[in-house]
Amino acid sequence: MNNSNTPENRIATVSANGQSLYGVIVDSGFIALSDEFPQWPTLKNVIHDNALDQLVNAAQGREVTHPSGSFSWEIPIPDPGKIICVGVNFPDRNAEYKDGVQAPPNMSLFVRFPSSFVGHQTPLTRPPESDKLDYEGEIAVVIGKGGRRIAQSDALNHIAALTMCNEGTLRDWVRHAKFNVTQGKNFDGSGAMGPWLVPFTEHSQILDVALETKVNDEIRQTDRTGRMLFPVARQIEYISTFTTLLPGDIIVSGTPTGAGARFDPPKFLVPGDNIEITGEGIGTLQNGVKDEHDA
Amino acid sequence: MNNSNTPENRIATVSANGQSLYGVIVDSGFIALSDEFPQWPTLKNVIHDNALDQLVNAAQGREVTHPSGSFSWEIPIPDPGKIICVGVNFPDRNAEYKDGVQAPPNMSLFVRFPSSFVGHQTPLTRPPESDKLDYEGEIAVVIGKGGRRIAQSDALNHIAALTMCNEGTLRDWVRHAKFNVTQGKNFDGSGAMGPWLVPFTEHSQILDVALETKVNDEIRQTDRTGRMLFPVARQIEYISTFTTLLPGDIIVSGTPTGAGARFDPPKFLVPGDNIEITGEGIGTLQNGVKDEHDA
Repeated sequence: MNNSNTPENRIATVSANGQSLYGVIVDSGFIALSDEFPQWPTLKNVIHDNALDQLVNAAQGREVTHPSGSFSWEIPIPDPGKIICVGVNFPDRNAEYKDGVQAPPNMSLFVRFPSSFVGHQTPLTRPPESDKLDYEGEIAVVIGKGGRRIAQSDALNHIAALTMCNEGTLRDWVRHAKFNVTQGKNFDGSGAMGPWLVPFTEHSQILDVALETKVNDEIRQTDRTGRMLFPVARQIEYISTFTTLLPGDIIVSGTPTGAGARFDPPKFLVPGDNIEITGEGIGTLQNGVKDEHDA
Repeated sequence: MNNSNTPENRIATVSANGQSLYGVIVDSGFIALSDEFPQWPTLKNVIHDNALDQLVNAAQGREVTHPSGSFSWEIPIPDPGKIICVGVNFPDRNAEYKDGVQAPPNMSLFVRFPSSFVGHQTPLTRPPESDKLDYEGEIAVVIGKGGRRIAQSDALNHIAALTMCNEGTLRDWVRHAKFNVTQGKNFDGSGAMGPWLVPFTEHSQILDVALETKVNDEIRQTDRTGRMLFPVARQIEYISTFTTLLPGDIIVSGTPTGAGARFDPPKFLVPGDNIEITGEGIGTLQNGVKDEHDA
């Protein structure tokens, strides 16, 4: 898959020596910048001030401060106000539910807490309560300019950046109750986000890009955002009808068919599996799997 | 209804002269205390340090700083990390769904954002997108001591305080999509929380207390927490199975039968209605209703 991002536009939050830092990723490592911008404690503040490009500029010509291997990856925005996930948003996904119900006229939405995600290259956590941990490869859209009742025609202008998401799910726990999926979508550390933010400067970055999920090098999910039932611009319009979107809010835009639950027998994740989720022009989010009691 | 709370244990967040303040409510008004505790920017920080009683003590013998009428009420904790709501939790509520589905073995859970709530005595907002705004009277439980996989037998020791909630809902928007209820539960300003926090010091404050909702002085909902299908201790145990509860997190514990959607024809809220939700020993949350375009 073609990956058109240049080294200088990958903005990450990492952890090194017990400290959380943000900065720019280059091929040889990480250029820490957060100490130079105390007015912005996290990337959420950078986005609030529409200043991702200032970070990119500040990194030009710098040496890496942290070589590859000397830091661990955190989720790019550690403190998003809201993470709203879109369900059942690619062709055939409705059929996967096998409930005989027609695809609805509106998108399904649910909420995840930041604690349900780990960063790039940190293993997903399989909890002792369930052996039905499943992957879902998705593109995550980070809101830049906030707003309420944003028109679809203007919606893409409200995006600050893109990143990748493994919207890891405990399949049995999403069917525990009468409605909603909150519990199976919110086990601590069951999903991942990252590796980095790519600033959103062209509508073409989201309109029709490839999205692919591999497990142990086997392609499990592959589709294009152009085939979404509810495209990202419609997502922003619909969500902002009821809630005011704010800078740093995140919309996780939906997963293609091919999650592990779809197979017969199902192919749930087990410790040692390797999941890679690639968005064209964004990057590849890679995670293993570990059992929580082995932590 | 007996209301056993003493004047000195009502801890509120209010707005006066454009400033957000926390302090103690007495019969003649509000005693601002936040300026004396700069280490705690909001009541979430007070709860994190288990210091609600320090506020109560600091108010002893003080004069009011803001007489009644000179301030407006905010939601008690302006910045909760999570607000998790329990659905279908009183007898007959499952039958109200009229979907022929048996009551499930686990509780339904969904998430609300803080922006979906106004404070005491601020009108609920009816948006132009729906005329099906409905009330749901509930008790909101504020977590004090955080934890993961909290045992039911220990769960009530993790509560810091109680407050009231009008879990206002746009009934048509909760049925927009295949699953979950996110959108109809998260219209900005469609619900309310408050008026104040009452510190939780005795298990009897939640085990079997009366909960009542009146609309225009007509009793619409009345029940007791002792009849919950999933009592609060079980809620804390179940929720903390998948997510780490943190100080200031809020669990909205479920509403009795009798919401407006239940009537035939339904009795949805209209501008000018007056809703009062009373929890025994906690207080009464009162709100009107306004149309958003009249704001």
